[in-house]
Amino acid sequence: MNERLAKQIEFLVEIDKVKQVFRRTRLYDHTRYENDAEHGWHMAVMALVLCEHANEPGLDLARVVKMALLHDLVEIDAGDTFLYDPDQAAKAVKEAAAAKRIFGLLPPDQRDAFHLLWEEFEKKETPEARFAGALDRLGPVMQNARDAGHAWKKHGVRSGDVLRVNQQIEKGSRAIWEYAESIIQEAVREGHLER
Amino acid sequence: MNERLAKQIEFLVEIDKVKQVFRRTRLYDHTRYENDAEHGWHMAVMALVLCEHANEPGLDLARVVKMALLHDLVEIDAGDTFLYDPDQAAKAVKEAAAAKRIFGLLPPDQRDAFHLLWEEFEKKETPEARFAGALDRLGPVMQNARDAGHAWKKHGVRSGDVLRVNQQIEKGSRAIWEYAESIIQEAVREGHLER
Repeated sequence: MNERLAKQIEFLVEIDKVKQVFRRTRLYDHTRYENDAEHGWHMAVMALVLCEHANEPGLDLARVVKMALLHDLVEIDAGDTFLYDPDQAAKAVKEAAAAKRIFGLLPPDQRDAFHLLWEEFEKKETPEARFAGALDRLGPVMQNARDAGHAWKKHGVRSGDVLRVNQQIEKGSRAIWEYAESIIQEAVREGHLER
Repeated sequence: MNERLAKQIEFLVEIDKVKQVFRRTRLYDHTRYENDAEHGWHMAVMALVLCEHANEPGLDLARVVKMALLHDLVEIDAGDTFLYDPDQAAKAVKEAAAAKRIFGLLPPDQRDAFHLLWEEFEKKETPEARFAGALDRLGPVMQNARDAGHAWKKHGVRSGDVLRVNQQIEKGSRAIWEYAESIIQEAVREGHLER
């Protein structure tokens, strides 16, 4: 096997570990927590289905899908940080080191391309990154809203936090934020999310 | 919420069930079986990493990724059919009905587009479908080769079957088939796969 393919295979085996990184949200059947590979898959399909709702109509869907697939690989080393954890700075340091190691397994051209995509997603400065970011937030809102507020209750999160943290959905898609806001408000009315 | 978005959301919630469809192959850490959502995610990342090895250089990578993400949704209704199960005709009938129901949850334009992509993948008549098919086969070969032939042994599969069933990898990528063949032969030498 040539050296290039060997590196690619090593990367593909290493990233299997993301299937064992569990999140704070459960599947819609409520039997267990979701892992990062499942979340990445679901987010990529959300991009295919919901792209017409992005604020910028001409965005590059393929790049959104790539970000969805790759954005959580850093959690193999850095672990899953809860969205409502106040220490987001420590998370950024751990994830930057993780990105260097994990994407560094690839041949240099792919290492750089994937690392740039991950950084683009983190910075949220492009239409693609903002839309991918919106989908990354929409998932847990929907999951908690349909799970009697499971993670919100378990971690003592209140409606003000949920609205503040997820408000950035609006930067990627006003239509999706309108929907997300409506299900957050409904969760409050139903007693699944504290005011 | 408008009717179109409502249908899209219903589809996105329904397909969560694919996270509970388990396959015959285990994760690389051998602690549990892989599910279809994880497999779809991994196959999509494989497409991003390995696309240079496709036989046809100018293939549409975005379409390969979409097929990877969507190809196993039919298993929500039809269940996972083992690659070495002789009754592949019954599988085709069950999966066609499943595709109709599941993609039918979407608005008509997306229903038709996704259904066509799924059919394209099944038929293996385009470069994209053949390359996606190669990745779909490569995954389990690698997983079993690194798991002391777990599924091969458990289901009494022999090297002739493995070579015959996976030979179609070559139609999508000669380079990947060369690699797959080498690890199948190695598994035979190591006693993980019966001659």
